[in-house]
Amino acid sequence: MGRLFRSRMDVDMAKKLFFGAIKPIKRKESVPLETANGRVLSSDIEAEHNVPHYRRAAMDGYALKADDTLGATPSSPVVLSLSDGDVEPGTCRRVHTGSAIPGGADAVVMLEDTRILGRMVEIMSQLYPGKHVGDIGEDVAAGELLLPSGHQLRPADLAVLASAGISDVEIYHKPLVAIIPTGEEVVPRGKPLEPGQVWETNSLMTACYVRQYGGFPRMDDIVTDDPKLIRQALQDNSDADMIVISGGTSVGERDHVPAAVEALGEVLVHGVAISPGKPTALGVVMGRPVLCMPGYPVAGLVALLVFGIPAVQKLGHIPFRPETIVRLPLKEKITSRQGYQTYVRVRIRDRGVEPVMSSGAGILSSVARADGYVVVPSNIEGYGAGTRVEVILF
Amino acid sequence: MGRLFRSRMDVDMAKKLFFGAIKPIKRKESVPLETANGRVLSSDIEAEHNVPHYRRAAMDGYALKADDTLGATPSSPVVLSLSDGDVEPGTCRRVHTGSAIPGGADAVVMLEDTRILGRMVEIMSQLYPGKHVGDIGEDVAAGELLLPSGHQLRPADLAVLASAGISDVEIYHKPLVAIIPTGEEVVPRGKPLEPGQVWETNSLMTACYVRQYGGFPRMDDIVTDDPKLIRQALQDNSDADMIVISGGTSVGERDHVPAAVEALGEVLVHGVAISPGKPTALGVVMGRPVLCMPGYPVAGLVALLVFGIPAVQKLGHIPFRPETIVRLPLKEKITSRQGYQTYVRVRIRDRGVEPVMSSGAGILSSVARADGYVVVPSNIEGYGAGTRVEVILF
Repeated sequence: MGRLFRSRMDVDMAKKLFFGAIKPIKRKESVPLETANGRVLSSDIEAEHNVPHYRRAAMDGYALKADDTLGATPSSPVVLSLSDGDVEPGTCRRVHTGSAIPGGADAVVMLEDTRILGRMVEIMSQLYPGKHVGDIGEDVAAGELLLPSGHQLRPADLAVLASAGISDVEIYHKPLVAIIPTGEEVVPRGKPLEPGQVWETNSLMTACYVRQYGGFPRMDDIVTDDPKLIRQALQDNSDADMIVISGGTSVGERDHVPAAVEALGEVLVHGVAISPGKPTALGVVMGRPVLCMPGYPVAGLVALLVFGIPAVQKLGHIPFRPETIVRLPLKEKITSRQGYQTYVRVRIRDRGVEPVMSSGAGILSSVARADGYVVVPSNIEGYGAGTRVEVILF
Repeated sequence: MGRLFRSRMDVDMAKKLFFGAIKPIKRKESVPLETANGRVLSSDIEAEHNVPHYRRAAMDGYALKADDTLGATPSSPVVLSLSDGDVEPGTCRRVHTGSAIPGGADAVVMLEDTRILGRMVEIMSQLYPGKHVGDIGEDVAAGELLLPSGHQLRPADLAVLASAGISDVEIYHKPLVAIIPTGEEVVPRGKPLEPGQVWETNSLMTACYVRQYGGFPRMDDIVTDDPKLIRQALQDNSDADMIVISGGTSVGERDHVPAAVEALGEVLVHGVAISPGKPTALGVVMGRPVLCMPGYPVAGLVALLVFGIPAVQKLGHIPFRPETIVRLPLKEKITSRQGYQTYVRVRIRDRGVEPVMSSGAGILSSVARADGYVVVPSNIEGYGAGTRVEVILF
């Protein structure tokens, strides 16, 4: 482990190892459409009914027999009589968009192409059979594949399913993500602080990200820097689909977290060429991915963005959605940490990008002042003023 | 109204009139941080405490007096004795990242630049006062503006607030959006259908979009095509911040919705140069914006995307977030409706864009098969195969 840590594994290699060890969950549940927005289908959905289940008018107008309109023009209209029942030759019947086509009719003339004269209607255009008539199953045919397994449901999809008579859908469970904060220096929020102590905030941040990206977070109590207690906490959370454990991944002698992962499973990566976030460790315990995020909040945030969120998405079958990127010129140069993929917090002002001052990974307030971040690759030293850069919005 | 409808108002003008009539809500509530992700601050937040509230070590190493390290190099180290209390001249004390700097010390030497020999420590680099020492309030100074009113909270912001000892935040209410489905032809989902009837699905779609974009939806019962009942439903929902009423905006004689809006308030727009979605009407009743969305589902969807969602965002002070756009070449030409801003449903296959076949606004299933849509401006006729177009993802 010490060796891996010092070797600062390349980010792409670390991702490959970690995500390669993650198997999407198989557990399914059935939920009503009302609560299914954003969830992921665990089976194909086929239509049970035709939509529409009847021939429908596609326009407001009159249903009629197309044969009756032969040669009709505005200057030489055909005159039909109004019917209240089926349409016989020489008659027509008023229909509205979406209403059923009466028996005997095979076309609909638009209201704009007609003139009503008492119980007679002048038809001013010639129609072909089927004009403005929607067939049975035109929208959805019974047995048709409506949505495939793995599809993430959007509001309009729910309307499609509802219109085909479907009320419940089978979806994958949300991945359960256990969050374990560690450290002698962190205390629960609300408790008075002694010098050297800080309130524990990484679990709140992690829980909100997990929820936002489709997981179900479960926050555990703070575990002190004791190898035995850390191992116990990992074991106690082995029912989860993933464990995020915060703190204790640096080189100090108190950093027992990667050792605990190694004792119970395997450390795949310890130390990543990413800044901030270098002490990140990645492993597997009892088949579950474990993200050991640095206790320093901004380093922890980068570890969440780079490893945590994509892991939740892979576990939950949640399709990757591209980040929102804004491309704008830098107002001043940004420098990076040589040999590290560097995440620079920036803000957008007057259509330009400026770095948010920060003197270290602990400066969480730099995040509050930032609109997003710029990723500087490990093989360059930074970007000069005026360079157009891609800002990934938080 | 009839005049406005036929005039097919330009989309930008319709947006200007409608959004110009919307006043962001003023109601506030106080919620714990745990439930505040994505919500919008209704007041500035200032820090109540310094973060850190003590001088802290920025590295693992030894706290010492910088003066004691004068001239120290790897080949000529300074030797200090270990202290367990305050740091006196000639002594140092072990510290961890984030731990309190002991009294008397003014700098921290990194562990890597030291060698321990029993109770003595060799220091191999010269330090200046303040080196690797984080000052009180370095991250957040008491009284400092942490986040301004109007800011939409992100997970990392919650961590910043928590680390500054804040447990609750004052936020704007979610806009309450009343959803009223109308039409003789729509029946509640689950009820058996007669010919000419369809299940009501626009309110489900609308509710999911409203919730997804930060509003609070309230679904009303279906109202039949009766002017008096429609007026009554609008009045009964006048406690909402916005009303979305579906159906009954076309030219048929049953289309009573815009008339009801006019009777109780003002119709600003009836008929928009947008396809599908032309029958959309926009108005104000008792100071509340009213979106009359076409009953045809795909036309209704376009009305929601163009008018409904931005209205919810303006009401709720929710910052506009750019859509996710993919720019790819068209695999085949797309045509638009001349004189209308046209929304073409498309799917992305093999790094190319293809239109999703559809023969009308009623073809909701085209949405399920679509990844997003391409907007064709009203003054051009479409795009040829090979043109690189912007796909806005659903």
